[in-house]
Amino acid sequence: MIFLFTDFGGTDIYAGQVRAVLAGAAPGVAVIDLTHDAPALNVKASAHLLAALALRLPAGAVTLAVVDPGVGSAREAVAVEADGRWYVGPDNGLLSVVAARAARRECWRITWRPRQLSASFHGRDLFAPVAADIARGEFPAAKAAQLARLAVDFGAGDLAEIIHIDHYGNALTGLRAADLPRTTRIVAAGRWIGHARVFSDVAHGELFWYEDSLVVVVISGNACFACARVGLAVGHPVGIGT
Amino acid sequence: MIFLFTDFGGTDIYAGQVRAVLAGAAPGVAVIDLTHDAPALNVKASAHLLAALALRLPAGAVTLAVVDPGVGSAREAVAVEADGRWYVGPDNGLLSVVAARAARRECWRITWRPRQLSASFHGRDLFAPVAADIARGEFPAAKAAQLARLAVDFGAGDLAEIIHIDHYGNALTGLRAADLPRTTRIVAAGRWIGHARVFSDVAHGELFWYEDSLVVVVISGNACFACARVGLAVGHPVGIGT
Amino acid sequence: MIFLFTDFGGTDIYAGQVRAVLAGAAPGVAVIDLTHDAPALNVKASAHLLAALALRLPAGAVTLAVVDPGVGSAREAVAVEADGRWYVGPDNGLLSVVAARAARRECWRITWRPRQLSASFHGRDLFAPVAADIARGEFPAAKAAQLARLAVDFGAGDLAEIIHIDHYGNALTGLRAADLPRTTRIVAAGRWIGHARVFSDVAHGELFWYEDSLVVVVISGNACFACARVGLAVGHPVGIGT
Repeated sequence: MIFLFTDFGGTDIYAGQVRAVLAGAAPGVAVIDLTHDAPALNVKASAHLLAALALRLPAGAVTLAVVDPGVGSAREAVAVEADGRWYVGPDNGLLSVVAARAARRECWRITWRPRQLSASFHGRDLFAPVAADIARGEFPAAKAAQLARLAVDFGAGDLAEIIHIDHYGNALTGLRAADLPRTTRIVAAGRWIGHARVFSDVAHGELFWYEDSLVVVVISGNACFACARVGLAVGHPVGIGT
Repeated sequence: MIFLFTDFGGTDIYAGQVRAVLAGAAPGVAVIDLTHDAPALNVKASAHLLAALALRLPAGAVTLAVVDPGVGSAREAVAVEADGRWYVGPDNGLLSVVAARAARRECWRITWRPRQLSASFHGRDLFAPVAADIARGEFPAAKAAQLARLAVDFGAGDLAEIIHIDHYGNALTGLRAADLPRTTRIVAAGRWIGHARVFSDVAHGELFWYEDSLVVVVISGNACFACARVGLAVGHPVGIGT
Repeated sequence: MIFLFTDFGGTDIYAGQVRAVLAGAAPGVAVIDLTHDAPALNVKASAHLLAALALRLPAGAVTLAVVDPGVGSAREAVAVEADGRWYVGPDNGLLSVVAARAARRECWRITWRPRQLSASFHGRDLFAPVAADIARGEFPAAKAAQLARLAVDFGAGDLAEIIHIDHYGNALTGLRAADLPRTTRIVAAGRWIGHARVFSDVAHGELFWYEDSLVVVVISGNACFACARVGLAVGHPVGIGT
C-alpha cells in the first residue's frame, strides 16, 4: 500500500493528480492519505513530522513524501528503505530523519526520468511512478543507483521547534517526550510551560505540555485554540528548561 | 466497508493514522471518509449530524465515529448496531441519536484494550481495531459486553441548534423538516426566517429555510455566505415560530 | 475507476455522501478524489480547470463533475464521452470545455430519475448512480438519450481569468502556455508580469508567470503568497501583452 505525505493541502488540485497516476500505474494498490498538511515548504519540520508518523506505518508500507520547494533545481530524487518501510521523495532532507532513526537503512538515487517531466511537479511525474513500482513489489533496480548517504541529512536528533499546529489548536514539537522527566518545563512564545496529564489538571486557558500519541511533546491549553492565542506557529523555537 | 465520521478536520494528521491502522487490520476493506468536519468537540451537534448522514449509509456499513473531548477520562468505548448498520465510538452520546432513532438496536461496551493505548487517541488505538474486526465480519464477542443502555443518551428528538455550516455558507440545523408545514417560520440570529423552495424565490441577500437532502432544515440565503454574514455558527440556537 | 471533481470543499459533508452512494452502487470500483476545490459556484472557471486536469486522467476514467449552482432548476443532466474518457454532470457548461477540446466526443442527456431525487443534491442522487453504471461497464442506454449539442458550451478556447488559487498562493489561469512565446507579458491586478523559469530568476517578492505542469499559465512570486498579497482571486481577468 502507498501512503501520501505531502504539503499539497487537503483541498487543492495536486493530491488528486498524484492519485490519478498511482491508479494507472499500480491498479488495485491501496492509496492512503497519511496527510497533505505537512508544514508547507518547510522541509526540516516536515522531516520530523514524517518521522513521528512513520512509527505507525505498517511493515512494507511505501510512502510518497513530497515537500519540495527546490523542485526543478538540481536536487536529486531518492528512495529510502528504513526498517522494512519504503520512502520516495526529494533528496532535500525530507527523508533523512526517518532514515537516521532506523536501525537499518539503504538509500538509492533515482536515475530514471519519465518521458514528460514537468519542472514543477516531480511528485506526480517522477516520485509517483517509482512508488508504484515499489508497491507492486518490483524494486526498480534499473531506475536507481545505490547511494552512500543522503545529500541533506538532518540527523536522528530532536528538533526544538513547532512542527505542526493541529485542527484543535494544539502545537506539536519536534521534541520526543519518552525520555523527558515530567518535571521538565518547556519554553515557547516567551512562556514557561509545565507538564500536565490531562486538561482538567490546569486552570482555564493555561498552557501545558503532554506526551502525544506520536510520542512528541505537544503544547496545549485547557481552552480550545490556546496555542493560536499566544501566537505559536510552525517553525517557532521551543526550549527545554528544568 | 468502513466509514469515518470525525472532527479531525480534513487537512490534519489524525485521519491518516486511523487509515493506516485500518489498512493493516482490515486489508482489502474499503475505507470511506464520510466527513472529518463534524462540529469540533461538540458531541451533541455531532450526534445529530451523524444521525442525518446515517440515513444514507448502505446496509452493513461500519462507521467509526470519533468526536471525543473526553478521551483519556473514564468514559467507556461502545459499539452499536442500529437497523443493520454498525457504529463504534465513545460512550459520550455521539452514537445515541442514531441508536434512539433506529427501530432495532443493540449496544456493547468494548472491554478489550490494545497493548499500547495512548491517552489522547483512542480513535486510532481502540476504535479502529474494533471497527476492523466488525468490518471483516467477526463480531468481537470476546472484546465486548452487552449493554442495556448508553451512558449518555440525547434521545431521538430534534436539536434546535445549528449543527453544521457548510462550505457554501448554508447552516444545517438539528430540526427535521419532513413534518414541518411550509408556513413555519424559523427563528435564528434574532430574525424570522420564512420558507422558500429555491434561491430565486427570495430577494437578494434574504435568508430563507428549506428542506435539505438530509431531511433537515437548512438556513440559507440567495447570496453566498449569507449565514456567515448574520453571524450564525455551530451551536447557536434556532427556534420554530408560526 | 471514478474520479470526483467538485466544489464541495475538501472538509465538508457532501463528498462523503457521494462516496457512500458509489460504494453501494459500484462496489470494488476505485473512487478517487481529483479535487473538491473547484471554484465554488463558478461554472466557467471550473470547466477550464476540469479541462486542464482531464489531460492527466487515465483512459476509461469516469469523472463525476459537480459544480452546480442551478441544481433544482430546469438544467439537464448529461454524460459526455470525450476521447475515451467519461464525464457525468450538469448541462450547465461544466463539461463543455473538455468536450470541445476532444478530437472525438458523444453527448447524452440523462433521462432516468431516481425514486428519491432531492432538490439540492443531484450529485449524490442522480449523477453518482449513473457514473457507477458507466464505471461498471454498463452504459445506461435506457437511461439516456443521445444529444446533438450541450445546452451551454464555453467552447475550446482559453479563458483569460484566474481559475484557481493553490495552497501555496500561486494563481492558475485559463490561458494555455504551450504556444505562448516566453517574451509574452501577462497583465493581472494592474501589473505587467514577465516570464521566468524558476523562482530564483526574479527578485524577492516579484511576480512572474510560468508554464505549469498542467500546461496553463501560472502567476507566481518568489515569496510565498505573493499572489494573495496583490489581491488576485478566482474570476479576476488576466490579459496577454507583448
